[in-house]
Amino acid sequence: MIEEKESIKEFNFLIPTQIIFKVKGLKELKSFKLGEKPFIVTGKNSSKKNGALEFVKECYPNGVVFDKVEENPSTETCNEANSICRKENCDWVICIGGGSPIDAGKCVAGLATNEGNCEDYFGRDLFKNVPLPILAIPTTAGTGSEVTPYAVITDKKNNMKKTVADTKIFPKVALIDPELTLTMNKNITLSTALDALSQCMEGIVSKKSTPITDILALEGCRIIRKWLPYVINNLDDVKGRSEIMYASLLSGIVIAHTGTTLVHALGYYYTLNYGIPHGIANALFLIPMFNRNENYLPDKVKLIFNALLNESVQEGKYRIGDNLRLFFEELGFSYKAKDWGVEESRLSEFAQNLSQDPYRFRNQYGEFSVQELENIFRESYLGK
Amino acid sequence: MIEEKESIKEFNFLIPTQIIFKVKGLKELKSFKLGEKPFIVTGKNSSKKNGALEFVKECYPNGVVFDKVEENPSTETCNEANSICRKENCDWVICIGGGSPIDAGKCVAGLATNEGNCEDYFGRDLFKNVPLPILAIPTTAGTGSEVTPYAVITDKKNNMKKTVADTKIFPKVALIDPELTLTMNKNITLSTALDALSQCMEGIVSKKSTPITDILALEGCRIIRKWLPYVINNLDDVKGRSEIMYASLLSGIVIAHTGTTLVHALGYYYTLNYGIPHGIANALFLIPMFNRNENYLPDKVKLIFNALLNESVQEGKYRIGDNLRLFFEELGFSYKAKDWGVEESRLSEFAQNLSQDPYRFRNQYGEFSVQELENIFRESYLGK
Repeated sequence: MIEEKESIKEFNFLIPTQIIFKVKGLKELKSFKLGEKPFIVTGKNSSKKNGALEFVKECYPNGVVFDKVEENPSTETCNEANSICRKENCDWVICIGGGSPIDAGKCVAGLATNEGNCEDYFGRDLFKNVPLPILAIPTTAGTGSEVTPYAVITDKKNNMKKTVADTKIFPKVALIDPELTLTMNKNITLSTALDALSQCMEGIVSKKSTPITDILALEGCRIIRKWLPYVINNLDDVKGRSEIMYASLLSGIVIAHTGTTLVHALGYYYTLNYGIPHGIANALFLIPMFNRNENYLPDKVKLIFNALLNESVQEGKYRIGDNLRLFFEELGFSYKAKDWGVEESRLSEFAQNLSQDPYRFRNQYGEFSVQELENIFRESYLGK
Repeated sequence: MIEEKESIKEFNFLIPTQIIFKVKGLKELKSFKLGEKPFIVTGKNSSKKNGALEFVKECYPNGVVFDKVEENPSTETCNEANSICRKENCDWVICIGGGSPIDAGKCVAGLATNEGNCEDYFGRDLFKNVPLPILAIPTTAGTGSEVTPYAVITDKKNNMKKTVADTKIFPKVALIDPELTLTMNKNITLSTALDALSQCMEGIVSKKSTPITDILALEGCRIIRKWLPYVINNLDDVKGRSEIMYASLLSGIVIAHTGTTLVHALGYYYTLNYGIPHGIANALFLIPMFNRNENYLPDKVKLIFNALLNESVQEGKYRIGDNLRLFFEELGFSYKAKDWGVEESRLSEFAQNLSQDPYRFRNQYGEFSVQELENIFRESYLGK
């Protein structure tokens, strides 16, 4: 009965964010006043489309709105936002939108109380002073950024995505209102949810996986498997949206502890070179990577397999990749990178480049030669 | 596939405590310095027996030790500790021990920065000023107090257990070292673990249950079911101790959100009148109460049933109570209150008294007449 091979648990856990998950929760915004004058960070579209920004402005008429955050926000944007935030003497930050505005807002909160530029804080726990308190209001269901200590920012100097990781930039409050995701179209719904799925799956096989996040991640996988096919065909279903939003939250709690693995590192090349949305880019690597993870961590991948189980698939006869393929087909998602504009001719260059960045392998089990990386790119390209 | 009856999720989640779970984690104590001069709150025994107090004193030679916390700590003890803490100008609190010293230490941390006595803070979120930062080091595996915002204190004036509930008294750090539980004898191991089991089970059927705590609570149930019979016969097994400690942590995260239910309210009479250990007292009510909870919440109790499943028990043929009975028998735990010195003659008095305290029913589904409460006491007495 006692499994000898099961090792003794050892882990850290920290999510200091107060999480409020509630349909129409946005209406309670005034209960979560974290200062006198908010700096309101948002993107170019979503928070306007769904009326959320308007409501935030009504609640805090003295707030200063910064609405220029682009997808994959840049150091420049963060630095510009910071100088406005400082000039206006804002004393707390409201981030509203998808992962990009939330990440940018976290940066600004840190920069507002610490000297220097965004570029100076790439790395771990570099903010010295306590940042401005952050209220995060996600309007997509995929990144979980509302409960992570990360801000992923594109360094304009070398066009690379880098991470500000600092437990000080955990939002103080995450106000999660699934209704805000109702205006996402089918494509964005799909790509953001696939990001959440990827984060859950990667968290389980990460070298930094923890017992608590493993349970939450498996639940995230189960929920996405169950609800995503329904939601992309019923975009206005609040219950379905709420389930995916919940899975996204779980995926954020997961990667806050586990970080991401090679899937994210691989997907990065597709986003950077072809503008393929982050969630899609990751999903294009789930099949080749999890077939490999299955070799390294058979017990853990079996748990994922069961969480993703399609009723028509019998356990034991199939590999995790087969299971994912059936799921992607049900979603109408083309899992062949060649269908997304990726060029076969560049795959070996990507593999070469990736192999030279040991940081990208820090959470990944297994050894990966350049050849093996190229195989993975090629399998992703062909959808094998 | 979509379950119509499943309602839309709505919940809050907050565990601001930094959790470090590690065998020999105590050795890292110096990394978690939260101030200049700690007030060290502990009980009369356990932290001395296992050497933990000695180590804490070595790390912080200027710390002021208060080692007079009794089981079920009193307002008097908390007030006395507070006056010493203030006189000595301590600026943080280390609580080390079982639930009692941790609860007392949380109180002191709040009282040290807020005027008045312990009695003034029974209720919810009454501390105005930020308490002293708290480092909690549990040496039993059962209460989960290291990750809750509660301090249960006995009010000496009327000999009643009351609760200081305040999100401000969440420990800042919980340093959880399963080795510290190795010195617990079989009885304490059993009673504290049964408290954790009870907390997990109650959390699932509480009116304040949440989707996140439900998953964690079920995992807690599974772990206790799997490991407790082994651990009480292998008290020096670090892996087993670690599993029970983990389940206890989960149970704390659970009740931090869900509170406890009628099981705790009932058990209270046995502890107060017969000195029956808290965990045992609760466990004596699990069978009668969960047979009733099964009627109110069949789906949820089925999940618990499966988590507790004994391989010899076939689902569908048995009730949750049968399942618990088998588990208790495997543990050698007598689930008949009459074996613990409870007097049949007083049961109706207890039922009367309990029925007059609506607060004790706040998280409990179902209606309970005095007669029904007496039935429950009687079933517990007879072990039915």
